[in-house]
Amino acid sequence: MSSFFPAPLEDLIDKFATLPGIGRKTAQRLAFHVLSLPQSEAEGFAAAILNAVGSVHTCPVCQNLTDGELCPICAGDRRDKSTVCVVAEPRDVLSIERSREYAGVYHVLHGVLSPVNHVGPDDLRISELVARVGAGDIREVIMATNPDTEGDATAIYLSRLLKPFGVTVTRLAYGIPVGSNIEYADDATLLRALEGRREM
Amino acid sequence: MSSFFPAPLEDLIDKFATLPGIGRKTAQRLAFHVLSLPQSEAEGFAAAILNAVGSVHTCPVCQNLTDGELCPICAGDRRDKSTVCVVAEPRDVLSIERSREYAGVYHVLHGVLSPVNHVGPDDLRISELVARVGAGDIREVIMATNPDTEGDATAIYLSRLLKPFGVTVTRLAYGIPVGSNIEYADDATLLRALEGRREM
Repeated sequence: MSSFFPAPLEDLIDKFATLPGIGRKTAQRLAFHVLSLPQSEAEGFAAAILNAVGSVHTCPVCQNLTDGELCPICAGDRRDKSTVCVVAEPRDVLSIERSREYAGVYHVLHGVLSPVNHVGPDDLRISELVARVGAGDIREVIMATNPDTEGDATAIYLSRLLKPFGVTVTRLAYGIPVGSNIEYADDATLLRALEGRREM
Repeated sequence: MSSFFPAPLEDLIDKFATLPGIGRKTAQRLAFHVLSLPQSEAEGFAAAILNAVGSVHTCPVCQNLTDGELCPICAGDRRDKSTVCVVAEPRDVLSIERSREYAGVYHVLHGVLSPVNHVGPDDLRISELVARVGAGDIREVIMATNPDTEGDATAIYLSRLLKPFGVTVTRLAYGIPVGSNIEYADDATLLRALEGRREM
């Protein structure tokens, strides 16, 4: 059955099917859609892939994605470069920037430690973080990995690695989300919220 | 927020987000995945798009997709070319071929009539079907559009258009699916199964 459609179409379906979360049926639908586009739009899609892969790379300082020499945050002089917020993915930088509160810089790990998925320290941008902290200009490292098993384990691993350098290592606060209802908070979140209670 | 990621990455996310069923978050995930591929694989993806768009076109006889002059079914001499099965999409040809029973040829409409989605007769390959039937070598046209409102309406429209040429126009049988249970059949299917009952 795999050779039923014309070979170039089968090939395109195969390519779409390698994308994460895209099954065979969806890949077919996407490939048919691309084929139905005007030639110039389909060519624009291919050009966008080549252009992104050719020009986007990681910032040599914070490892976030950029098409410049440094990323805009590291290149500017308005951020506090003695505070580094460690996140798992480039999209997490976007989330923290949205708070408009954070004035430090970032370090993007490009994943979290995950023995199940065979992701070890050498697969993440950890040596680059250690080198940054080792250079001596950093005072505080804020762990902002997700509050799940792998995110917590990664934060604990990094904190043990970085504390010998004499930096302060902190973790984002856990607790009840703002605007939500205690009645509907799960047990783990409530426990963390109690543990993290502060004097008023 | 839209200019937060490097421009070439934003552009690629935009392109993925134009695909059917792909929202903004999924488009981000796909674009990040493509960026994480080895350069040669990403280039292979772009090449697959260009190759498919450049070489796949519709068969001038049956309008199915092909990269040859005619599609393999029309090009061969082992099929009964006096019987034409009309389907909505190229993937429907695959489904009917799977039955290994049908020996005729096909006509692919590339859609169904749908006033809601502004799809009229001129948007489908209907004039090509009329020209085929008008050429005179066709005895039977089997309507194999989906048994839903739009598929039925399209079949009825085509049958009125084609009957004046003196061809037999038939519709796939409706009824209880083989291997299923009458207890769980919906009312509409049961009604059609009763209407279509045959002497044993």
